Amino acid sequence: MDEFEIIRRYFFGQSTQRDDVRLGIGDDAAILRVPPGQELVVSVDSLVAGVHFPEDLQASAIGHRALAVNLSDLAAMGATPAWALLALSLPRVDAGWIQEFARGFFALAQRYRVALVGGNLARGPLNITVTVHGLVPTGQALLRSGAQPGDQVCVTGCLGDAAVGLQRLQAHVAMTETDRCLQRFCFPDPRIQAGLALRGIASAAIDLSDGLAADLGHLLRASGVGAQLQVEKLPLSQSLLQHKTREQALNMALTGGDDYELCFTVPQERWPRLEANAREFGCSVTRIGEITDSKDLCCLRDDNTDWPLSVAGYKHF
Amino acid sequence: MDEFEIIRRYFFGQSTQRDDVRLGIGDDAAILRVPPGQELVVSVDSLVAGVHFPEDLQASAIGHRALAVNLSDLAAMGATPAWALLALSLPRVDAGWIQEFARGFFALAQRYRVALVGGNLARGPLNITVTVHGLVPTGQALLRSGAQPGDQVCVTGCLGDAAVGLQRLQAHVAMTETDRCLQRFCFPDPRIQAGLALRGIASAAIDLSDGLAADLGHLLRASGVGAQLQVEKLPLSQSLLQHKTREQALNMALTGGDDYELCFTVPQERWPRLEANAREFGCSVTRIGEITDSKDLCCLRDDNTDWPLSVAGYKHF
Repeated sequence: MDEFEIIRRYFFGQSTQRDDVRLGIGDDAAILRVPPGQELVVSVDSLVAGVHFPEDLQASAIGHRALAVNLSDLAAMGATPAWALLALSLPRVDAGWIQEFARGFFALAQRYRVALVGGNLARGPLNITVTVHGLVPTGQALLRSGAQPGDQVCVTGCLGDAAVGLQRLQAHVAMTETDRCLQRFCFPDPRIQAGLALRGIASAAIDLSDGLAADLGHLLRASGVGAQLQVEKLPLSQSLLQHKTREQALNMALTGGDDYELCFTVPQERWPRLEANAREFGCSVTRIGEITDSKDLCCLRDDNTDWPLSVAGYKHF
Repeated sequence: MDEFEIIRRYFFGQSTQRDDVRLGIGDDAAILRVPPGQELVVSVDSLVAGVHFPEDLQASAIGHRALAVNLSDLAAMGATPAWALLALSLPRVDAGWIQEFARGFFALAQRYRVALVGGNLARGPLNITVTVHGLVPTGQALLRSGAQPGDQVCVTGCLGDAAVGLQRLQAHVAMTETDRCLQRFCFPDPRIQAGLALRGIASAAIDLSDGLAADLGHLLRASGVGAQLQVEKLPLSQSLLQHKTREQALNMALTGGDDYELCFTVPQERWPRLEANAREFGCSVTRIGEITDSKDLCCLRDDNTDWPLSVAGYKHF
């Protein structure tokens, strides 16, 4: 099978149909229409085998994750997903692998009505690079830079599960449907619904890929503020607490990567609106601290003593 | 140096400034504005070390080519370049290499006013994936699918140089400024100007990455037509004829890849408009054949005997 045959068989015609796609896969480029009054939100992320996931991870999980980590960036901007391009570098043609990869990718794409509008297939070490496009009403995107002293710091869902999931994968634990930590590493669900619900409510937002401490650090620097975190308030799942002590679990929630939850800040006066819209988030929301006018991230126990922050977040090199 | 330090040092602040970029590098995603009356044209292409270029190719050429091959897709659509995203996977941090890579990338980006609005840096085997965005007035993009029997088949510039350039690179010939074939492989100049001049004139267009025979084949299939090529009319450079016999040179022009010229079709009645606009193309234009109502690509000598077509074009796997 050559490149064109693979594209035809596994990637053509599987895409969600959208009216704003004038021309999809098959020409030199796609032609897309951005509706009036909307801004285009664009992000790219790569997954490299052996670096971002174990080489032997099931192909459907790789397909899912490659799109999910990108959709998570759109969620953090409050954007509605629209289109994706997939650049896939494969060491060999393994039809079964490609089929499973495509199954994982398109199942998630269909859930969020994302059309695959272009791509590239190359021979080479396994590398999956996805570019996603979303739409947001002009001026309403959520940025990292809007947090103000006094704002509440919040997170969606539970933290730390994916880090335990990765540990279990690396220990070659077979995945079962009921192992929530493994599932969360392999099939993260981007918080698109929460991102949309946060438009007009959050003052700043970021998605959690490198761990809460590291990613909140980016938000704080972009906003020129600090934060005081109540570490013992971090939301933990029952699955995580089955595998770890409470102290270990809180450390993983604080520094473990790959959760793809959102961390965001909310001005006090908008808190009632957040509570009134709680059902629209599609997940829990937990207050975990407050923005301060220092430039530091200060981690505290419930008794206000320091929580030692050991790890600085995922280092890409 | 970690990911963020590399991005800050070599990629931040080097980008062309554009009014339609509301938010560039530094948040979860970029925010971009598509002007009313314009459609968005998007393409992605990857370069893999050892597959698309020799591992030891100079870094500035890799940076240039990674953007050039993508801009070439925009040229084939008749689009004006606007924004790019760069996903770079690097085996190690080599500051000198990254600096040279960025120099090649940004020199070309500035020539065509392309803003770098996002990216991703990962550790892994060398892989460069660029996503480019262009703009075209609604409905005016050039497609592969519009060729009609009787249309003239044309190409820009000269063909075959890059294939000889690659041969010379693989033979470890040192590059000199005067070796035009080597230069054309390393620093291809996308035919943006020609693409813009072809709006309203060409009935179909494609860029030449895999070789004329293979890429014209894609155009013919998309249009549901055939073509008769006058192989001895293919435009050859003096540099190519210095290295090869005329017969070899014509074969390279027909089947060699990496030229990044445009191949396009023009209805007879629009030929005077093309000639009147000849100065806007920024390069020569050569008629090389005619579209037919067969489904085949037929290659002829000037005496109308068959030219044997030996190679089917670059196979990606």
